[in-house]
Amino acid sequence: MNAEIIAVGSELLLGQIANTNAKFISSELADLGINVFYHSVVGDNPRRLESVIRTAQSRSDLLIFTGGLGPTKDDLTKETIASVLGRALVYDQEAMDHIEMYFKRTGRAMTENNRKQALVLEGCEVLPNRHGMAPGMALNTDGLTYILLPGPPKEMQPMFTHFAAPYLSGRLPGKEPIVSRVLRFFGIGESLLEATLEDIIDEQSNPTVAPLAGNHEVTLRLSAKFKDVNTAEEQLDVLEGKIRERVGKYLYGYGDDTLHKAAAEVLKERKLSVSSAESLTGGWFGKQLTDLPGSSEIFKGSVVCYTNEIKEQILGVSHELLSSEGAVSEGCAKQMAENVRRLTGSNIGISFTGVAGPGPSENKDAGTVYIGLADSSGTEVFPLSLSGSRTSVRERSVLYGMFYLLSKVKKGQ
Amino acid sequence: MNAEIIAVGSELLLGQIANTNAKFISSELADLGINVFYHSVVGDNPRRLESVIRTAQSRSDLLIFTGGLGPTKDDLTKETIASVLGRALVYDQEAMDHIEMYFKRTGRAMTENNRKQALVLEGCEVLPNRHGMAPGMALNTDGLTYILLPGPPKEMQPMFTHFAAPYLSGRLPGKEPIVSRVLRFFGIGESLLEATLEDIIDEQSNPTVAPLAGNHEVTLRLSAKFKDVNTAEEQLDVLEGKIRERVGKYLYGYGDDTLHKAAAEVLKERKLSVSSAESLTGGWFGKQLTDLPGSSEIFKGSVVCYTNEIKEQILGVSHELLSSEGAVSEGCAKQMAENVRRLTGSNIGISFTGVAGPGPSENKDAGTVYIGLADSSGTEVFPLSLSGSRTSVRERSVLYGMFYLLSKVKKGQ
Repeated sequence: MNAEIIAVGSELLLGQIANTNAKFISSELADLGINVFYHSVVGDNPRRLESVIRTAQSRSDLLIFTGGLGPTKDDLTKETIASVLGRALVYDQEAMDHIEMYFKRTGRAMTENNRKQALVLEGCEVLPNRHGMAPGMALNTDGLTYILLPGPPKEMQPMFTHFAAPYLSGRLPGKEPIVSRVLRFFGIGESLLEATLEDIIDEQSNPTVAPLAGNHEVTLRLSAKFKDVNTAEEQLDVLEGKIRERVGKYLYGYGDDTLHKAAAEVLKERKLSVSSAESLTGGWFGKQLTDLPGSSEIFKGSVVCYTNEIKEQILGVSHELLSSEGAVSEGCAKQMAENVRRLTGSNIGISFTGVAGPGPSENKDAGTVYIGLADSSGTEVFPLSLSGSRTSVRERSVLYGMFYLLSKVKKGQ
Repeated sequence: MNAEIIAVGSELLLGQIANTNAKFISSELADLGINVFYHSVVGDNPRRLESVIRTAQSRSDLLIFTGGLGPTKDDLTKETIASVLGRALVYDQEAMDHIEMYFKRTGRAMTENNRKQALVLEGCEVLPNRHGMAPGMALNTDGLTYILLPGPPKEMQPMFTHFAAPYLSGRLPGKEPIVSRVLRFFGIGESLLEATLEDIIDEQSNPTVAPLAGNHEVTLRLSAKFKDVNTAEEQLDVLEGKIRERVGKYLYGYGDDTLHKAAAEVLKERKLSVSSAESLTGGWFGKQLTDLPGSSEIFKGSVVCYTNEIKEQILGVSHELLSSEGAVSEGCAKQMAENVRRLTGSNIGISFTGVAGPGPSENKDAGTVYIGLADSSGTEVFPLSLSGSRTSVRERSVLYGMFYLLSKVKKGQ
């Protein structure tokens, strides 16, 4: 099955946005073992869209469209496909109900053009849109498969993952499956990880090991190709064991795991709660933990103390310490962590103080960071010296905080 | 002159990178007044590349290629174009000298395949590469224009700006520049905005108005095409005035503005400070404001009160209120905003309480949100009923909070 991804939208041709949808879908199709041979982008113009569809029909088996399913007059993807295929558009009652419900719930007025979004290609399988109004479509006709997806990535991505991908994999002939496992590491650089594992990486042909530097972390993708999945999984277990022996302390999770998910899970298991005192990070640590459903079990709250007055008045950091050592100091991180733990009655208190930059502060360079971690056994302070932009310093501080928290709680097990 | 941008590279089709080159070139061509009707992406495969070239020749006047000019066997863009055009490849001495110099300077050994990079289409204008080795090319033949650019953005972008753009504008018959202005709206949906402005959008041909739904917001792109830029700007002013009359209260900025930047700027101008009491958002509001350098001028801190105990003990929300109305209530939002303002001595207190989901809480549906805003003149509470995922509810709550804050401070001006 050879695929072509067709993005419809003048905003792409005007250079307002990049075609990140094609990147996402291509990567997902690669995982499914489906070749992508072409991407096309065309504007909101029915004549040119029609010619792109006809070209695609002549060279590809699977045509995946993104964009042009919205309520406005510009949106004409399904209308044009319907006309090329000589197929009617019909109202889908479920989609109509979903749209009406959406307006009822949000209390906004539904305009007539929103009804247009419930029109689908006759005979298609409707792909529900859980993050917006326009439904997607999948249609198999005359030996070709058509998938229509909405343009906004936050609607398109979940629709692809939950509905389009299963639709496609159900139609693929039995291939030798590739079983993959992604190991996630934090606190070790890509080159050091690769050097430490060099012989393992070079020796392996099945399973293979591929390192990839991600956003402030490193992953290893292990891939095994065997007739049956159990053999593949066993081989991956053996390989993972070898890797753990050398760099296990940096391994924090698998697949789509994140440091904050891993930390939250371990806290839940151990029935422990955490609170944060945040200067440098301005609330980012709490924001991260509360991204997760059920976080109220493990997170009580934060005091975001962006000024010294709040550090003193709400957190009770000593005035003398702030005058002598300053807010960006080991002593301040220690008091912040201990005091927020006491103030909120949490098992663990974590603190973040430092210089985000761009310039220095209190005569300390941008990137100077102290992270405090207090529990019933005492308090540790971790000093860091980070490079990079303001955002990068803040982001990595939160990640290091999660990693220290996770390591501490795990060690206590 | 109608342009088509053709990116060559299997890494795009595998979803390893997004086609940001097409975005950059499209945006630059729009500024030159050149229409872009298609983007195409094809892999490192001569047969498929040839068919893409032939399709482009049949529908476009200007073919801009990116990628495939490097030293490896995979790189075959110029070879394929040469074969389609029946034109020879010849060594360019200047490019050859440049490549040899590059290896001499970096002390690396030059391999034979690097010589291949100095081959150019016979009769073309060579576009120098100041940030890499492969030269670009520009060629006008049989009424069509071909531009070949390298794939890496840091080589392609300066080559486009310094050599390809001047080459193109020198060949344009006294064209009129397109002047664009992007207006950013929050708090109004795309379909309602379009319905409200329908007659304006339909009437306009120059300037034009194009709506685009973004991440929880809507933008309008106004584009004017006149002989001189001043006339274009005047016409955009007139059009913007008409739009402001109808939907001005939703307009918060231009171009790359964000709500939190706009809010921070207005607070700075008025020398006002804000603090937040965050339940639902877990620290996200403070995180957003402190993303900006210099935010300590306008942001003092937050109390992230994820449990009722912290709402009571640190913020002093009344126990009776929490028992009777619950934490997700207008009354709680009011007390949170007022109390955090008093506790931190800020000019403005803002609060967030609600049900992020996925499930209901306190018998209130996911998406039920109250945002409180307290200043010396009193307190307002804004109720919201949001749909979507947990992340979407939280993200939009922060955006609404920024929007209410911005509107309030602006009104006070």
